[in-house]
Amino acid sequence: MVRRIEHIAVAVKDVEASTKLFETLLGINGSGIEMVPEERVKVAFFELEGSRLELVQGIGSDNPMSKFIERRGEGLHHLCFEVEDLAETLRLLHAAGFPLIDSVPKPGSRGTRVAFLHPKGCNGVLIELVEQPSRA
Amino acid sequence: MVRRIEHIAVAVKDVEASTKLFETLLGINGSGIEMVPEERVKVAFFELEGSRLELVQGIGSDNPMSKFIERRGEGLHHLCFEVEDLAETLRLLHAAGFPLIDSVPKPGSRGTRVAFLHPKGCNGVLIELVEQPSRA
Repeated sequence: MVRRIEHIAVAVKDVEASTKLFETLLGINGSGIEMVPEERVKVAFFELEGSRLELVQGIGSDNPMSKFIERRGEGLHHLCFEVEDLAETLRLLHAAGFPLIDSVPKPGSRGTRVAFLHPKGCNGVLIELVEQPSRA
Repeated sequence: MVRRIEHIAVAVKDVEASTKLFETLLGINGSGIEMVPEERVKVAFFELEGSRLELVQGIGSDNPMSKFIERRGEGLHHLCFEVEDLAETLRLLHAAGFPLIDSVPKPGSRGTRVAFLHPKGCNGVLIELVEQPSRA
């Protein structure tokens, strides 16, 4: 069902500063900053073999990312797994008793479809599932 | 320098129960439980494309994993990146001002060498670096 870790996301206060920090740490360049106003965040990515590291900063104060940092500080925020058929995966997980934040897929970046599972059903881990756009 | 996410680790209270949960969630089988008494933990792995998910439970009460869970609850614990030359990477990161938990590589599982960076220098993320055993 799940094939790979598509990305792991880190909540940060200042995505520009954190990009520089992770560029030094990883020895590779980040993607540059992307604004995602509909999610009230700005993000940067680091492309790694088979996976990505995502840095996420909230825009303004009233957004889930800034609230997360107020509550828990900067750090690991969520884990995203790639699945082949997201709608079917959500049906199976709901039937298996997993609490879903999104019971149906919603649009993600770059033509993907995404959904979040509730961390209370996943040992405290906020899990995103992503389906890549069809290559047909 | 860094090539890939080698694994992402989740702190759990009951690794047997969490293995079953993630087997359902991921649709793949876990590795079975491994005891790592020198670290006072037991672990299970899920092999994914190019990376792994690790579930970690502390053994007894006086161990870093149980203390983490007391403080923050179950959830994402650390992120491990593979590097080619760990000793050289640690020298470079120290020179760049990164605070290190381990200033020299220590033995990890399966012939690897590992070291941890301090989360205070990495936006709150506890980062492990791993060098695979030489294939020569």
